[in-house]
Amino acid sequence: MKKILIINGPNLNLLGRREPGIYGNMGFEAYLEQLRAAFPACTIQYFQSNSEGALIDKIHEAGFTSDGIVLNAGAYTHTSVALRDAIQAVESPVIEVHISNVHAREEFRHKSLISGVCKGVITGFGLDSYRLAMEGLLRNEK
Amino acid sequence: MKKILIINGPNLNLLGRREPGIYGNMGFEAYLEQLRAAFPACTIQYFQSNSEGALIDKIHEAGFTSDGIVLNAGAYTHTSVALRDAIQAVESPVIEVHISNVHAREEFRHKSLISGVCKGVITGFGLDSYRLAMEGLLRNEK
Amino acid sequence: MKKILIINGPNLNLLGRREPGIYGNMGFEAYLEQLRAAFPACTIQYFQSNSEGALIDKIHEAGFTSDGIVLNAGAYTHTSVALRDAIQAVESPVIEVHISNVHAREEFRHKSLISGVCKGVITGFGLDSYRLAMEGLLRNEK
Amino acid sequence: MKKILIINGPNLNLLGRREPGIYGNMGFEAYLEQLRAAFPACTIQYFQSNSEGALIDKIHEAGFTSDGIVLNAGAYTHTSVALRDAIQAVESPVIEVHISNVHAREEFRHKSLISGVCKGVITGFGLDSYRLAMEGLLRNEK
Amino acid sequence: MKKILIINGPNLNLLGRREPGIYGNMGFEAYLEQLRAAFPACTIQYFQSNSEGALIDKIHEAGFTSDGIVLNAGAYTHTSVALRDAIQAVESPVIEVHISNVHAREEFRHKSLISGVCKGVITGFGLDSYRLAMEGLLRNEK
Amino acid sequence: MKKILIINGPNLNLLGRREPGIYGNMGFEAYLEQLRAAFPACTIQYFQSNSEGALIDKIHEAGFTSDGIVLNAGAYTHTSVALRDAIQAVESPVIEVHISNVHAREEFRHKSLISGVCKGVITGFGLDSYRLAMEGLLRNEK
Amino acid sequence: MKKILIINGPNLNLLGRREPGIYGNMGFEAYLEQLRAAFPACTIQYFQSNSEGALIDKIHEAGFTSDGIVLNAGAYTHTSVALRDAIQAVESPVIEVHISNVHAREEFRHKSLISGVCKGVITGFGLDSYRLAMEGLLRNEK
Amino acid sequence: MKKILIINGPNLNLLGRREPGIYGNMGFEAYLEQLRAAFPACTIQYFQSNSEGALIDKIHEAGFTSDGIVLNAGAYTHTSVALRDAIQAVESPVIEVHISNVHAREEFRHKSLISGVCKGVITGFGLDSYRLAMEGLLRNEK
Amino acid sequence: MKKILIINGPNLNLLGRREPGIYGNMGFEAYLEQLRAAFPACTIQYFQSNSEGALIDKIHEAGFTSDGIVLNAGAYTHTSVALRDAIQAVESPVIEVHISNVHAREEFRHKSLISGVCKGVITGFGLDSYRLAMEGLLRNEK
Amino acid sequence: MKKILIINGPNLNLLGRREPGIYGNMGFEAYLEQLRAAFPACTIQYFQSNSEGALIDKIHEAGFTSDGIVLNAGAYTHTSVALRDAIQAVESPVIEVHISNVHAREEFRHKSLISGVCKGVITGFGLDSYRLAMEGLLRNEK
Amino acid sequence: MKKILIINGPNLNLLGRREPGIYGNMGFEAYLEQLRAAFPACTIQYFQSNSEGALIDKIHEAGFTSDGIVLNAGAYTHTSVALRDAIQAVESPVIEVHISNVHAREEFRHKSLISGVCKGVITGFGLDSYRLAMEGLLRNEK
Amino acid sequence: MKKILIINGPNLNLLGRREPGIYGNMGFEAYLEQLRAAFPACTIQYFQSNSEGALIDKIHEAGFTSDGIVLNAGAYTHTSVALRDAIQAVESPVIEVHISNVHAREEFRHKSLISGVCKGVITGFGLDSYRLAMEGLLRNEK
Repeated sequence: MKKILIINGPNLNLLGRREPGIYGNMGFEAYLEQLRAAFPACTIQYFQSNSEGALIDKIHEAGFTSDGIVLNAGAYTHTSVALRDAIQAVESPVIEVHISNVHAREEFRHKSLISGVCKGVITGFGLDSYRLAMEGLLRNEK
Repeated sequence: MKKILIINGPNLNLLGRREPGIYGNMGFEAYLEQLRAAFPACTIQYFQSNSEGALIDKIHEAGFTSDGIVLNAGAYTHTSVALRDAIQAVESPVIEVHISNVHAREEFRHKSLISGVCKGVITGFGLDSYRLAMEGLLRNEK
Repeated sequence: MKKILIINGPNLNLLGRREPGIYGNMGFEAYLEQLRAAFPACTIQYFQSNSEGALIDKIHEAGFTSDGIVLNAGAYTHTSVALRDAIQAVESPVIEVHISNVHAREEFRHKSLISGVCKGVITGFGLDSYRLAMEGLLRNEK
Repeated sequence: MKKILIINGPNLNLLGRREPGIYGNMGFEAYLEQLRAAFPACTIQYFQSNSEGALIDKIHEAGFTSDGIVLNAGAYTHTSVALRDAIQAVESPVIEVHISNVHAREEFRHKSLISGVCKGVITGFGLDSYRLAMEGLLRNEK
Repeated sequence: MKKILIINGPNLNLLGRREPGIYGNMGFEAYLEQLRAAFPACTIQYFQSNSEGALIDKIHEAGFTSDGIVLNAGAYTHTSVALRDAIQAVESPVIEVHISNVHAREEFRHKSLISGVCKGVITGFGLDSYRLAMEGLLRNEK
Repeated sequence: MKKILIINGPNLNLLGRREPGIYGNMGFEAYLEQLRAAFPACTIQYFQSNSEGALIDKIHEAGFTSDGIVLNAGAYTHTSVALRDAIQAVESPVIEVHISNVHAREEFRHKSLISGVCKGVITGFGLDSYRLAMEGLLRNEK
Repeated sequence: MKKILIINGPNLNLLGRREPGIYGNMGFEAYLEQLRAAFPACTIQYFQSNSEGALIDKIHEAGFTSDGIVLNAGAYTHTSVALRDAIQAVESPVIEVHISNVHAREEFRHKSLISGVCKGVITGFGLDSYRLAMEGLLRNEK
Repeated sequence: MKKILIINGPNLNLLGRREPGIYGNMGFEAYLEQLRAAFPACTIQYFQSNSEGALIDKIHEAGFTSDGIVLNAGAYTHTSVALRDAIQAVESPVIEVHISNVHAREEFRHKSLISGVCKGVITGFGLDSYRLAMEGLLRNEK
Repeated sequence: MKKILIINGPNLNLLGRREPGIYGNMGFEAYLEQLRAAFPACTIQYFQSNSEGALIDKIHEAGFTSDGIVLNAGAYTHTSVALRDAIQAVESPVIEVHISNVHAREEFRHKSLISGVCKGVITGFGLDSYRLAMEGLLRNEK
Repeated sequence: MKKILIINGPNLNLLGRREPGIYGNMGFEAYLEQLRAAFPACTIQYFQSNSEGALIDKIHEAGFTSDGIVLNAGAYTHTSVALRDAIQAVESPVIEVHISNVHAREEFRHKSLISGVCKGVITGFGLDSYRLAMEGLLRNEK
Repeated sequence: MKKILIINGPNLNLLGRREPGIYGNMGFEAYLEQLRAAFPACTIQYFQSNSEGALIDKIHEAGFTSDGIVLNAGAYTHTSVALRDAIQAVESPVIEVHISNVHAREEFRHKSLISGVCKGVITGFGLDSYRLAMEGLLRNEK
Repeated sequence: MKKILIINGPNLNLLGRREPGIYGNMGFEAYLEQLRAAFPACTIQYFQSNSEGALIDKIHEAGFTSDGIVLNAGAYTHTSVALRDAIQAVESPVIEVHISNVHAREEFRHKSLISGVCKGVITGFGLDSYRLAMEGLLRNEK
């Protein structure tokens, strides 16, 4: 069994509750069930926090033992050098995902501080971005 | 009874103890009593944290049920996109306040990442900035 | 009796006539009556001009004798170093106000050249920004 | 049968021949066979050109009739406003893909002029980026 | 008979087909007939290409013999130094035109690389920009 | 009878007197007669001032009753946000004109603060720029 | 008799009244008497205004007949392209002066928009800057 | 006995485990024993956290009672204004240290937001940077 | 026999016809004969195009078999990342040449996107730049 | 007797020999005689060097004993922080002079690194700039 | 015996004489005696010059034979690429030191051109910075 | 006999001794002999200095009598406006050379302050750059 960790960063706990016209009205936990069903050969752990430090702690904890991390760092994508360092320090490959197309939004969302140390980036496919990241991770292990 | 939440960000727990020549020697808790007395028709909750994540958690918790949030984000004003997203995600109006005139200080304090998603901004009136924010919030509900 | 001067800069003479969906359909003179009624212990003078030089003249004229100036400098907020110098040269405290939330508008409106020399700044409360400025001025004399 | 067009931009005709240590020694045509095998329910057309104008012509030609376009614009990603306009003008959804992680390379490759008008972006999965784009396109039609 | 060449750059072949709410539903060829009727004393040639090189070739070809060139360079306006050099190298006066008001659109459309070497610029009059350019060209020969 | 207002900004009162090699030796008033003769169905008013405030006053005065304004804002083109706001506030369409090709001059003349809120821009046709603006205004009323 | 015009820009009417520790307590009129006494062979006219437009008007008025203009443009030094154009348009040589050393003050005072079109610049000698400008003007006529 | 606090910021908990070729294979705790042995006259406390807020809390807690703080803020060095404010608010002198030469690494690591409010900075001596900071702190008390 | 390819980019087909005062009145073909005569031991092929794509095609075609390429990329020097990638992808050494001293011209011609991947650069020797490039190429093979 | 030192920086030894159309054909030594004649009550020493270090040495040597230094730092004006520090370190007042109007020349000559620490600046009066500096120095001792 | 060279750059010869309130009233030579006493097992040579070239000469001279160089490059720290190259070219490790905290001073002192090629940097400990550099050098030889 | 001067700037005295893998192990003097042998009809003088001032002195000395100067200004290429002025002041043509391809190195080496005033630039041919410069100089006298 492959072990994959999905990490959601700040404000993503509000999925399903906030602006359903854009994000849909499905909370991430409900989507997670679908995702687990789609990858029966994987153990998918899930972690969400609004705290930069807690996200780093989690990456450290899983980053030497899991087979991959799918990370939606939310707004920390654009401001956190510390998160970048955490990704670079661990051994598990990390895939950066975004639900919306961040490049179609405000200028300050166009620059990611973490893309350069992730294995790959998937942006703009809605919740399906997570599934594509899983597929990319499982088919392309190093 | 209106429910208002006042949130203070990093280093504001040192008010009254730090540079009393500038900030006065009244701690925020003492001021809070005066504020509560001035608004007997309001329930005023208070929260302070030095952690970006804890501030976001609090905004989420109160942002769908309170009648307004008065937020002094301290230094996170200038660096936190995550806080901006939290303010934008909730329903309660948020007023940004600053005790000192941040525009008369270092260049890096002149740019606020959160002003654009707050309902209003009040800067430079000392602790009275909080009271003005309360008045502005109560007289201008949407 | 306290003497307060309210100064409105360029294009603010069109209030009530221009984009009533945003600015409401009340002209500033009508609002001024409400304001005078709310502060019976103050003499409130009012001046509007579209000319940078006339605004400076007025600040000079009132800036050594009035108890405070409430200034909505309109677009000159973002371009006038001369206005900044005028504010810095006089003795009366000046409060910068804006009706709309300028930080939610175009990038070139995010930088104020005058904030650094004003006593305080109030932004985004509609016409009530002026009243809050009055309250802030009267409660916080130096 | 879904109709998908894959477009490769400048220098991608050298795949398999150039720096095999990085890009592998499989030419794109060989990979294309695998891709067609993996999506038997799709018609996959393929086009490569080193000319910005020819790429725009092709997007116009297919952009009103195909079910989606997978576009690796190569270096034009970073310099072509004309390509951006072409993507925005057509009706078929376009997915931007990159073989390598462009964010781990030179600074001038970090900015994409086309991401903002594409439906989604997939970066860094080697040739598998194309397959992920196909999957994302097919599962997420609008 | 005066000889005038009208050149349209990238994506302008889609006029009448793309976003008719903005650009109207008249293709450029239909408009061209009206234009020819309005200037019976002129021979008006027309050329469109999505290729930067082909546009330069055409400017070279006509730039020593025609009485003027009306050029809507589309997106190449903002990125092509080569087009600028071509305009500067030929003898016929060139008028830069734009259908929409490019200054009211994205920041990257505000800078034209070719304006400085054109005789004049006409922006924002819809298809009538071409007619104004014709009038300006014919009345102001050097 | 259509009512059109032509406004000239700072230093344009010196036309005909200043650098006749460049600007010709015809003062604007002499040209105005030609213009009036060319448009017998229009009432053409003319106003010139070196004062930013006076220009704004005039735009306010005519901007709700005239059929169009032709504005050469001179150097204020590059520095006046207040003028921009005035143009945006009124109802009459405004055409920005320049006699010389400002893009062929100093870098600081390449950026116009007002283009984005004008209906159209005409640059570089000498005094004929005004006539083209008139034609564009009259043929393209909204 | 040589005819020299001295022009003072915004806020310089407050000399002698404002910050006497820095600027001394002599108003400019008192200094002007000393200056006239020092140059008995000159007619020295004096003009002060806080209005950019009035300063331009005055430069136009005197710029073709006086033997030189000594200009302290105050804050307009840093923001007025229109003033620059006025200086460039007239025939009389213009000397830029500043009482204080503007380069030792805020960053935004380090850039002068008018220096490039003035004959010379004198900065930092207190009121004596005007006298030095007079001497420089009289000894160096072109 | 002098009381010194050593604080390590984000990702420094991985020392000894991560990239031993660069950082050596000694964890910080092992090094700490050597350090305590080298300074028998000091009480050396140690704190590590990946959370910006927790680091600020610790600086507050120790910053009024310890004789000095040695701070390796890791990536927060480059992004945290809040940490800067915390250092400025407390009374104990703070020494900024870095194990590697940050100036020989990526551009975004060349700017420290905290250096300006620290007493001194020591960079590039490996783990010995901490010992040098201790020596500097103890020999140079104010 | 060594095989050398000379490639000229956009607008260089006009040599001899355009601004003979600067570029001389010798077309490149005439110069080519002189060059061939000067290097009897070389086969010199020549290619010119105004199309970025055609230039890339040619570099691909010759870049694995010729002994060197002398490239005057004209204006694409300053805008084409695609050309840079083409040069980097092939095996033959490429020398960048310019006829005029581009550093003595407009600011936007001072930056070359391709210099970093060429073997050497020769600028400012008129047509002799090509001959120097040949000599440099032939004497310094790797 | 007042002691004044005049220092000329790099390339000013070529005065009278280089571009006489601009700088005149009088060498500085010849001018110096005139200057000494004009200030009989002063001892005027003169020093020229093309070496930044030698200029600093000289400022140190004279900066504690002379009554003033007139410094034309030539190109070091725009690049030398070391010269700035030398001026700031000594006690004698330093006047910055320039023969030509540097603000009318290349952009990189518009910024002076030393103006902020000089007592005054005189620019653009030809060789008379030195005499004006002398007059300013002698009339305005602190 | 270890051989260490201490090099002081521009203006540091004035130590003890200049601003004693900041730098103390001990000249560097006096401090040097203390330093030599503290490191009896080292030969400490000392060199000071205000000339960039002389500093480079000295680094060349000692840089292949000494056991380390302690360099306070003064203002050349911020402007000299040549010094950077000299440090990079020699074999002896170089430690960059500063007496004051340069990061608490003007913006242009925050960037060091040489830090990236030095082994380590020590800033802000007064004259003790040199001693710390010595200790760091001796304990951390490579 | 033609008289040519070759000037080498800072750190180039270390050629042959420093990084022989890159620069080869031939010192410049040895190469000079080869060069002199290759140009028997020229007198080749050679000068090297690490001092900016000495380089300027030499350019002055030879710049009115030699037939050309070949200048490798080393790091001063990127920082010295004074050197630029020296080149511009003299009459002999100056060729800028670089041994390595500076455009393939650090960003701060991509900008040359002197290229714009040199006759030509040759970069990246190793020591052969000097010979190419000689050839270019001798074949292209003006």
